[in-house]
Amino acid sequence: MGDKKQVEQITSMEVDFAQWYTDVVKKADLIDYTSVKGCMVFKPAGYAIWELIQKQMDERFKATGVENVYLPMFIPESLLEKEKDHVEGFAPEVAWVTHGGLQPLQERMCVRPTSETLFCDFYKNEVHSYRDLPKVYNQWCSVVRWEKETRPFLRSREFLWQEGHTIHATAEEAEERTIRMLNLYAQFCEEILAIPVIKGRKTDKEKFAGAEATYTIEALMHDGKALQSGTSHNFGDGFARAFDIQFTDKDNTLKYPFQTSWGTTTRLIGAIIMVHGDDNGLVLPPKVAPTQAVIVPIRQQQEGVLEAAEGIRKALVDKGFRVKVDDTDKSPGWKFAEAEMRGIPVRVEIGPKDIEAGKAVLARRDTGEKTECAIDGIADTVEKLLDKIQKDMLERARQRRDLQTYTATSKEEFEKIFSEKTGFVRAMWCGDEACENEIKEKLSVTSRCMPFEQEKISDKCVCCGKEAKKLVYWGKAY
Amino acid sequence: MGDKKQVEQITSMEVDFAQWYTDVVKKADLIDYTSVKGCMVFKPAGYAIWELIQKQMDERFKATGVENVYLPMFIPESLLEKEKDHVEGFAPEVAWVTHGGLQPLQERMCVRPTSETLFCDFYKNEVHSYRDLPKVYNQWCSVVRWEKETRPFLRSREFLWQEGHTIHATAEEAEERTIRMLNLYAQFCEEILAIPVIKGRKTDKEKFAGAEATYTIEALMHDGKALQSGTSHNFGDGFARAFDIQFTDKDNTLKYPFQTSWGTTTRLIGAIIMVHGDDNGLVLPPKVAPTQAVIVPIRQQQEGVLEAAEGIRKALVDKGFRVKVDDTDKSPGWKFAEAEMRGIPVRVEIGPKDIEAGKAVLARRDTGEKTECAIDGIADTVEKLLDKIQKDMLERARQRRDLQTYTATSKEEFEKIFSEKTGFVRAMWCGDEACENEIKEKLSVTSRCMPFEQEKISDKCVCCGKEAKKLVYWGKAY
Repeated sequence: MGDKKQVEQITSMEVDFAQWYTDVVKKADLIDYTSVKGCMVFKPAGYAIWELIQKQMDERFKATGVENVYLPMFIPESLLEKEKDHVEGFAPEVAWVTHGGLQPLQERMCVRPTSETLFCDFYKNEVHSYRDLPKVYNQWCSVVRWEKETRPFLRSREFLWQEGHTIHATAEEAEERTIRMLNLYAQFCEEILAIPVIKGRKTDKEKFAGAEATYTIEALMHDGKALQSGTSHNFGDGFARAFDIQFTDKDNTLKYPFQTSWGTTTRLIGAIIMVHGDDNGLVLPPKVAPTQAVIVPIRQQQEGVLEAAEGIRKALVDKGFRVKVDDTDKSPGWKFAEAEMRGIPVRVEIGPKDIEAGKAVLARRDTGEKTECAIDGIADTVEKLLDKIQKDMLERARQRRDLQTYTATSKEEFEKIFSEKTGFVRAMWCGDEACENEIKEKLSVTSRCMPFEQEKISDKCVCCGKEAKKLVYWGKAY
Repeated sequence: MGDKKQVEQITSMEVDFAQWYTDVVKKADLIDYTSVKGCMVFKPAGYAIWELIQKQMDERFKATGVENVYLPMFIPESLLEKEKDHVEGFAPEVAWVTHGGLQPLQERMCVRPTSETLFCDFYKNEVHSYRDLPKVYNQWCSVVRWEKETRPFLRSREFLWQEGHTIHATAEEAEERTIRMLNLYAQFCEEILAIPVIKGRKTDKEKFAGAEATYTIEALMHDGKALQSGTSHNFGDGFARAFDIQFTDKDNTLKYPFQTSWGTTTRLIGAIIMVHGDDNGLVLPPKVAPTQAVIVPIRQQQEGVLEAAEGIRKALVDKGFRVKVDDTDKSPGWKFAEAEMRGIPVRVEIGPKDIEAGKAVLARRDTGEKTECAIDGIADTVEKLLDKIQKDMLERARQRRDLQTYTATSKEEFEKIFSEKTGFVRAMWCGDEACENEIKEKLSVTSRCMPFEQEKISDKCVCCGKEAKKLVYWGKAY
């Protein structure tokens, strides 16, 4: 397989998962660190993944009637403060702008950590009648949260995301949109990122600052830790009341409208790395791989080899795939290792003997499996292979997730599992925050969500033994 | 034509061009003002134009080998200060972040006004050998400049743009890239925005802070004022020296690399408005029109009308066009006026009589011309019409620009033209900044560029009468 020199540079997942992660993001050329602590450079290989996520997610948004907008990056302090829970949640971690040019500002402004307050300010201008509703807006932008501990993609002081903000005449319509977007995220993760997720509702303790209800998709990483991968919030009319947004309804009375917001971030790239990656580096699902196939010519100095590689490239590009020929002067082994590190789904090897036999070798990044195929019709073969890789990656991720999902019906069992393993534990909960706090303190574990698919696996809360109300997924979170 | 009630709300261009502009951006629903002075909301109709610009420009970038990246939005003060001219140019107009969360920062940071310094910091890490060169990177992002006077799209405290930053082994290669991107911008403006531009070099007085040479494309607005619509800078090795970026060349010696940067902004939307708009509102070139055709059903309550409208919509969408049916309960006249205000290139009218005759009416936004066409094959007819509109708009803009371009060979003539007219004036210049200053002070006119297509229209500088070195386009600028 790969060239050892290249591969030996990364730490094994088993040895140190955190170090493995850091090695992959660097060696796969996804990011670079910068002079600004906690901020990073998205290098071409990293940014291209985000572009593919953005393009495919944006298409899905628009198919549900979402329109894109762009709001300012600054929030005046007085605006941030209008919704009490919201400001408490965010004020401790915002970056404050105090000077414009050489002058101090009359009122300081923060760089948006999220834009609910700005959208409310905007909607207050725009929404007056039921005819102005609903508004289903989204923006792609960067936001800033002044975190103390940072990790590439997972938690950084500046990150890229999309934030949808909608406003509706009725509570039902707002709830419908909240759930619809969560379902869209879940489907996107499975179909595009090959990442299976649990859909559910956050407990009150874990919900978003200012929300009535927060829904989440939770994915399980290779190391058994959970990653919150997207959230969708129903605000009820709380923000509308705080910002005094009212509209005249059909019955000619003034009413407060209902709002939602929903977001996903560049964190999804962290999820891809930690769900699919292995000790040879990144493994990209074909649908978000900036390069879906790399063609490595063998004995490329021999006549006809580069031409054959180019012929294959053209056939694949014509079929709509993202393809590169690696005709650098590195050894084939080095090229293999590099392509593996970067997670390119399919490698095509073509040398003089293959050409003579009218064949090429296809190697799968996800399984390492190699097969021979006819050069004639290779684009169809690669198309099928990429489809299969995409499906297999989801299936394997689902199997691994299921293997790392446990069920506990007693406190003993619950604590035993978490003392021995990392993963999701399904257990019943009484609904009392005290139990969540106790579990968190004792086991460093949080409630990830109350899944939509509820089941009664026992009558009693796994913590206090009182009557159980909800099935909860518990886990250690990133 | 349009419904008067709607149309009368905007000021005529002739009466007050600045007010006309403000009316159009508001009434065409492009933007909204916000609580943050000088920052604006891009509403769906405004942002969609930017998305179309971005998509089509990005494709052209990538075809020349550009890769997209994303760098942080913050620049530590010490980094901004490394290149002397650059910091002098930008420091007076940046927004300063002084606090992260509840803590004051050890070193304050500005929100990027442009990212040369960040790219240099990044390249210093990435570039060590000739093998690492060139790097041809670009980012789409927002930047902040704390301007005193602001106007939507033309000058705002935060705006959206792309900034390309490249680094090369030789001065020749850097110059080649600088010119190549300027040519790309010029072609983009003509082919996509239907805006003819003059390509040229800025004088030293007008060049970018830190650049060796700045190239520009200059467009002429309806009111005869010039708009700098894109710039491309050659930095030589100045930034590399200031940031100590060096690489080992093939001959095994350490050398400084050469850099460029080039950018276009949401200002281009301002250019579209001011080049093509008229007293009925916005006029969009088909290639950047979010809605290319609106179908207005006449007597829509009559049986078969909405079905026929929907049939036409489907035929046009299948052909790849962006189309809407306006089936709201407004009057047709109101719908016409609204579609005109929003600049939709083609309006399709379809009523019971048309259906009976197998026909529809097509109205062009740019000329107001109406024609009948067969419903059968309407998609082909509309395709040809949109092509023709796109071409005609460029041609008309070019004719208007040429009519507003004057030539002066003496000081008297020069001053006379500017006292009577607004437009480009072509005149010779000795190369001395003193003359530029004198002209600016006296006539409020600046040198827009030294056009690539030089001509010797007289031997003497139009200001001082000394020996002329360059033909210059002069004008009043936005």
